[in-house]
Amino acid sequence: MDRIAVFPGSFDPITRGHESVVIRALDLFDKIIIAVGVNSNKSGFFPLEKRMGWIKKTFSAYGKVEVLYYEGLTTDLCKQQNARFILRGIRTSADFEYERSIAQMNKALMSNLETVFILTTPELAPISSTILRDIYKHDGDIKPFVPEKINSDL
Amino acid sequence: MDRIAVFPGSFDPITRGHESVVIRALDLFDKIIIAVGVNSNKSGFFPLEKRMGWIKKTFSAYGKVEVLYYEGLTTDLCKQQNARFILRGIRTSADFEYERSIAQMNKALMSNLETVFILTTPELAPISSTILRDIYKHDGDIKPFVPEKINSDL
Amino acid sequence: MDRIAVFPGSFDPITRGHESVVIRALDLFDKIIIAVGVNSNKSGFFPLEKRMGWIKKTFSAYGKVEVLYYEGLTTDLCKQQNARFILRGIRTSADFEYERSIAQMNKALMSNLETVFILTTPELAPISSTILRDIYKHDGDIKPFVPEKINSDL
Amino acid sequence: MDRIAVFPGSFDPITRGHESVVIRALDLFDKIIIAVGVNSNKSGFFPLEKRMGWIKKTFSAYGKVEVLYYEGLTTDLCKQQNARFILRGIRTSADFEYERSIAQMNKALMSNLETVFILTTPELAPISSTILRDIYKHDGDIKPFVPEKINSDL
Amino acid sequence: MDRIAVFPGSFDPITRGHESVVIRALDLFDKIIIAVGVNSNKSGFFPLEKRMGWIKKTFSAYGKVEVLYYEGLTTDLCKQQNARFILRGIRTSADFEYERSIAQMNKALMSNLETVFILTTPELAPISSTILRDIYKHDGDIKPFVPEKINSDL
Amino acid sequence: MDRIAVFPGSFDPITRGHESVVIRALDLFDKIIIAVGVNSNKSGFFPLEKRMGWIKKTFSAYGKVEVLYYEGLTTDLCKQQNARFILRGIRTSADFEYERSIAQMNKALMSNLETVFILTTPELAPISSTILRDIYKHDGDIKPFVPEKINSDL
Repeated sequence: MDRIAVFPGSFDPITRGHESVVIRALDLFDKIIIAVGVNSNKSGFFPLEKRMGWIKKTFSAYGKVEVLYYEGLTTDLCKQQNARFILRGIRTSADFEYERSIAQMNKALMSNLETVFILTTPELAPISSTILRDIYKHDGDIKPFVPEKINSDL
Repeated sequence: MDRIAVFPGSFDPITRGHESVVIRALDLFDKIIIAVGVNSNKSGFFPLEKRMGWIKKTFSAYGKVEVLYYEGLTTDLCKQQNARFILRGIRTSADFEYERSIAQMNKALMSNLETVFILTTPELAPISSTILRDIYKHDGDIKPFVPEKINSDL
Repeated sequence: MDRIAVFPGSFDPITRGHESVVIRALDLFDKIIIAVGVNSNKSGFFPLEKRMGWIKKTFSAYGKVEVLYYEGLTTDLCKQQNARFILRGIRTSADFEYERSIAQMNKALMSNLETVFILTTPELAPISSTILRDIYKHDGDIKPFVPEKINSDL
Repeated sequence: MDRIAVFPGSFDPITRGHESVVIRALDLFDKIIIAVGVNSNKSGFFPLEKRMGWIKKTFSAYGKVEVLYYEGLTTDLCKQQNARFILRGIRTSADFEYERSIAQMNKALMSNLETVFILTTPELAPISSTILRDIYKHDGDIKPFVPEKINSDL
Repeated sequence: MDRIAVFPGSFDPITRGHESVVIRALDLFDKIIIAVGVNSNKSGFFPLEKRMGWIKKTFSAYGKVEVLYYEGLTTDLCKQQNARFILRGIRTSADFEYERSIAQMNKALMSNLETVFILTTPELAPISSTILRDIYKHDGDIKPFVPEKINSDL
Repeated sequence: MDRIAVFPGSFDPITRGHESVVIRALDLFDKIIIAVGVNSNKSGFFPLEKRMGWIKKTFSAYGKVEVLYYEGLTTDLCKQQNARFILRGIRTSADFEYERSIAQMNKALMSNLETVFILTTPELAPISSTILRDIYKHDGDIKPFVPEKINSDL
């Protein structure tokens, strides 16, 4: 049985922290599905197509990585994709408390699901999509914080 | 003098975690007033009547438990109800930091008020109303996470 | 049935933080038993008699407060004293994580036991017995941090 | 070279906690610029003029303190003001996690910038502008929590 | 290339929390090596043979699980065992902060090593070996907290 | 009046994290006194002379930095050295909780003392003297984690 992981998020935009988590987890799984969560009531800051395009470009060299978007429960996506693992990066203890609740609820909704946590590289830990959007809005340079492969698109 | 506690919250919806905190605290107080906070600018996800009805049904067997709604400061409600205690459940250390600030401010506004913290049962700790609303919106099953007595209403 | 609480600790020495927790909890219980934990392998810094004497002096005006020492499991003491509540003060989120584990294990050992958490007054939060012993060893003045009633004994 | 610090925030409204941080940091710097952040999409609760007036009144006796408002990145303001330090107060460990990310990102955007953290006095730690606005909206008295000098303006 | 994980610890004694982490991680790895850390200066509470025997009994049904003991750096053990993953359970945010430092240092010592974090089941989170030793010393019953398979040995 | 800071610690051994904090704080103070705390009951792992020699070598190029050792209360040292500031690095939220208590107690013992917190560079955050001693004991290489200037002494 293949080891398939879903890496859910809004990736608005993808950061070097996200990139690092996926690359560090590559050897652990046979397939990693990067799943961009879509909320019908709230559109993101960057358009969905842009967000997905950036992710695809970032991981174009890695055959194990797939990109898709979804609406609804992450556990429903996992069932449909035969994924028994959710991959998450954790940076801070505040992240951890939040992720633990989500992971325990997901386990309650799908008992054979396991959430696997990987650390980000310490120098990437302060980077969050929220802060990047704020820098971007004020004409600051976010290039050093997003994957190098997409720098030319910004 | 009776030991009267106010258990404030939005209960949108009531969870098994809330239920557990009230039942574990029953022997500590002579009366527990479950107080549904109402915000004139922001209506809840479930209608107020539904939220109050579910709470009443959950605790119908417990004569010590009362249910009401209020707008305004929790300390004003406590004064009006002759309640000298606020009851709160804490699940995580993030909860704790937030609750501590609120409790210390309430003490500053009403010096003879004491906030009493009770733990939830560990397996109920991940359950929050926020996550339940999210599951509900996406047609997931929240029955295992809300009090058994109201399962038939969902 | 009386509401009896055990307040366990090493009280080496008692601090103004401890004093504040007991006084703030007085109206909640019919009796508060301050229980000095004794470890046969490790004697405390201040002799047991001194520690107990200081506690008795601090609460001499409060008929509801009793002082005793014990060795062994706190839950065994609770059963023997017909106490269904453990009282604990929490100051920081690090305290909280530790106290939560202990409280949940105690609940597993004695199912009708409830741990009740009360906050210390913010200006007393930094005071811990550990820091006081360190100040005392280096001839610093700990009077402002221990109950006023025992200041003359130091 | 002068030691110039920027103390950024929304100060909506200024609290005794803010006042305490600035006064405790006065001897550390040659100039402290209190910088009220303005967001073109979201106006504050109290009008900008009021917020700035209250800050000026609070620190009118301190020649080292300047007040201004700004829109955009805090690092751009620092460059323009020749400020090499950002001053921040921290109250809780949740605050700390958030401040650390911001500080590390600011350092990445301006490498010779240093963020300096000062503690608030423990009894002021529970006070946040968010809680004060909530008390104010419900006709509670916020005078004890804002600087004494502006009490007559409320 | 096989996915081999080392699960290091003192297992003094093994708990249901440890058991749960290994079983939840089984599908993720081809082999899990439970490695009992030995410190030449400090012997454990339970003898090493007992600790290893209990672990072997607990996982006797699982062909993927091996048990050994080691002294020295965990990264040296990983190199020698061709293990590219360290498996760790995390229960609380205090655990997380500690584990993050260790994991980042291990990564600095062995760059192709990845630490993988798995959650324990919420009701097992309060159980730690430290608390179990304390209960055991005071003649309390630790059977409900250690793996069922070794209950008859206690 | 000069801005003099004491940077207290056991520096057993000095790390790149310590080095980074001092260098980042240099422009803030006129003098930084690195004060190696000595405990008459517990000798360190590395001899005091070695620890002090390493610190001196690390900062030999910086005229503002002095090194000394002390026994007793840090506040007594500050008074004797006319230092009105204590400098501390913080890495994690667990660090912060601990440092806050110490800082608040020090303020209570010496009212015109201010503790100033500076962050370490993210990639240095996992490094602690405790972990370095453990690596050193097991013949691991600690050179990448201690200041470059002392690498030749190890």
